[in-house]
Amino acid sequence: MKKIINNVEDIVPEMISGLVKTNSDLVRQIEGTTAVVRNDEKFKNNQQVGVVSGGGSGHEPLHAGYVGDGMLSAAVAGEVFTSPTPDQIYEAIKAVDQGQGVLLIVKNYSGDVMNFDMAKEMAEADDIKIKTIVVDDDISVKNSEFTQGKRGVAGTALVEKIVGGAARSGMSLDDLAKLGQSVIDNTKTIGIALHAATVPAVGHPGFELEKDQIEYGIGIHNERGYAVEKIQPSKKLAHELIEKILEEFKDQTGQFAILVNGMGGTPLMEQYIFANDVLKELDDKKIDVEFSKVGNLVTSLDMQGLSLTIMKANDEFIKYLKEPVTTIAW
Amino acid sequence: MKKIINNVEDIVPEMISGLVKTNSDLVRQIEGTTAVVRNDEKFKNNQQVGVVSGGGSGHEPLHAGYVGDGMLSAAVAGEVFTSPTPDQIYEAIKAVDQGQGVLLIVKNYSGDVMNFDMAKEMAEADDIKIKTIVVDDDISVKNSEFTQGKRGVAGTALVEKIVGGAARSGMSLDDLAKLGQSVIDNTKTIGIALHAATVPAVGHPGFELEKDQIEYGIGIHNERGYAVEKIQPSKKLAHELIEKILEEFKDQTGQFAILVNGMGGTPLMEQYIFANDVLKELDDKKIDVEFSKVGNLVTSLDMQGLSLTIMKANDEFIKYLKEPVTTIAW
Repeated sequence: MKKIINNVEDIVPEMISGLVKTNSDLVRQIEGTTAVVRNDEKFKNNQQVGVVSGGGSGHEPLHAGYVGDGMLSAAVAGEVFTSPTPDQIYEAIKAVDQGQGVLLIVKNYSGDVMNFDMAKEMAEADDIKIKTIVVDDDISVKNSEFTQGKRGVAGTALVEKIVGGAARSGMSLDDLAKLGQSVIDNTKTIGIALHAATVPAVGHPGFELEKDQIEYGIGIHNERGYAVEKIQPSKKLAHELIEKILEEFKDQTGQFAILVNGMGGTPLMEQYIFANDVLKELDDKKIDVEFSKVGNLVTSLDMQGLSLTIMKANDEFIKYLKEPVTTIAW
Repeated sequence: MKKIINNVEDIVPEMISGLVKTNSDLVRQIEGTTAVVRNDEKFKNNQQVGVVSGGGSGHEPLHAGYVGDGMLSAAVAGEVFTSPTPDQIYEAIKAVDQGQGVLLIVKNYSGDVMNFDMAKEMAEADDIKIKTIVVDDDISVKNSEFTQGKRGVAGTALVEKIVGGAARSGMSLDDLAKLGQSVIDNTKTIGIALHAATVPAVGHPGFELEKDQIEYGIGIHNERGYAVEKIQPSKKLAHELIEKILEEFKDQTGQFAILVNGMGGTPLMEQYIFANDVLKELDDKKIDVEFSKVGNLVTSLDMQGLSLTIMKANDEFIKYLKEPVTTIAW
C-alpha cells in the first residue's frame, strides 16, 4: 500500500487539521473532537435551524467540505469507514443550536444510525429540539453488510444542499425534516467500481476485479454490488444505470436533477464523458433535467468508479440545488 | 486498461460536451471547436481584457473548469496531452476580445508555445492586441521531454486566478502581462507520483514504480523526475519538497501562498494530511502563509500523487487569490 500519510491512527485528526488550517475563514474545529463547525461571520446568531451531518471518514469532501453558509452548520468525522462517536456528535449539536433546534442528516448505516440516535438523546436531555432524517438512496441492493435496508451514498450531498438552503431561508425544524424526507424519497443512486478502495489500516483493496471487469452496485465502503461483468463503453454503462434507476420512478414527467459522482480515483474526464452519455439518453427519453452536477462529491478513498444519482425534483428542490453556497467543496 | 469512455478518438469532444451540458449557465462551446467561453450575463460587453488559456486535455478541471467571472474568459482543449491547434485558439481569442485585447496564458511546452504563437499572429492580423505569458513553475528539472526550460504545472491555476481577478478589475493588457509575469517569477512547484497516468490511446501507465516506490519531480504528462525512492511518511515528503522549493526563494520574509494539488487519483484525505504537514513545517520556519488551497486543480488523468506549489506573494496577489469567482471548479 502506498499512501501519503503518517501513522494510520493519526489519519483523521491530521486530515481535519489540514482542512481547518487551509479553510479557517469557513470552518473551525470543535475542541477535543474531529468535528468542524461554521466559522463565518454570518453564522453567529443567524437564528436558523442547525443542520449537522457526519459519518465515517474516507468520503471527502463529504461532510466537512459542505459546511458553510447555505449548507451544513457542522460535520462530524469518524475514523475511516467508521461512525463518529455520540459524544462528538453531541458536541457538534451544541455548537450549532441557536434555539431553533437541530436537524441531523444521517446516512443509513447501523453504526451511524445508532450513534446519532444516542447523541440526539443526549441533546434532548439539554432541551435541544432534534429531528433526524436518514438517507438511503442506494437502490442497487436491498440490504448490505453494514445496513438494515438501503445504503446512504452520493445522494446525501444533494440532501445536504437542499436542506441546508431551506434552513438558511428560515424554515422550521419540523418543515425541514419533512422537506428532507421528501428529497430522500425522490433520490435514487447506483454506483459502479473499476477498482476497490484500500482502507489504510487494512493495506490492500477491499476486493479484487479482473483487468477487464467492473462491479455494478457497489457501496462506498467496498460493499459488494449486484453483478461483476466486463467493462462496457460509457454509453452502455449509462444505459444500464439509467434503466435500473428509472424503474424506481413510475412518473417520469416533471423535473429531474442528476449527479454524476466520482469515487475518488476516477478522472474528471471520464465523469464528464459519462455525464454526456447520461444526459443524451435522458434527453432521448424526454426526461427534463433541470439541474446537473459532476465531480468527486462523495468518494470512497481511492476507489475507481462513479455513481449516478437521479432525483425527481420540484421547483423547491431545484431552487435550493441551484442557489450559491459558501463551502469548501460544493 | 479500464476507463469509462467510448471511442478513444471521441474522448475530448465528449468530455467538453458533458462539461458544457452540465454547466450551461457558466460556459458555452465555441462552434466547431473544443474551446469553451463564458456564457454568463456579466460577460456580455464587460469591456475587460480577455484572458484565454488552454492546452492538452487530461488535466481537468484545468482549463475549462476555470472559465467564469473573475478567472478565464475562454479555455481551449487539445487532445489528451497534446496542444490545441492554432485555429481553435484563434476562435477563442475572437470570441472574447472586446476591444481591450487578449492575454494568453500558456504552459511552457514546445507545442503549446508554438501553437499559441501562431494563433497570436492570426489574431494580430485582425488588429486584436495580444500579449502572452508562459508559465514555467516546475523547478524539479531544468529541461524535459516536451519543453525547452522548465515545465508549466499546477502553479498555472494560481496564475489564472490572479490574472483573471485583475482583468475583472479593469487592468490594462500591458499591466496584466506584467502582473502575470511577476506571479510566474514567484511561483515554484514540485510534484511526486506514486503511480503514473494511463493515456487512453496508449493503454498502459507511462512508467512503472515498485510497490513501495515514489518518483520525485514528475511532470503532468508522465515526464520523469529527479529521483525514484522508497515512499516516506507524509511529513518527510513535505520536508523534501519544501526544502527544494525554498532554495529558490532567497528572501523568505513577507507573505506566501501555497497550493497542494492532487494529481487525479489521490484521495483528498491524503492531500489534507500532506497540507497539514506542509503548513506545520512552514510555521516552524516562521514563513507567513496568507493563502492556501488543497484539491485536484491541475491533474494528470488518473496519476496518483500530488504537487506542492509555493508562491512568494504580495498584497495584490493575495487579494486576487482570495476573491470569490464564479467558475465550475475553483
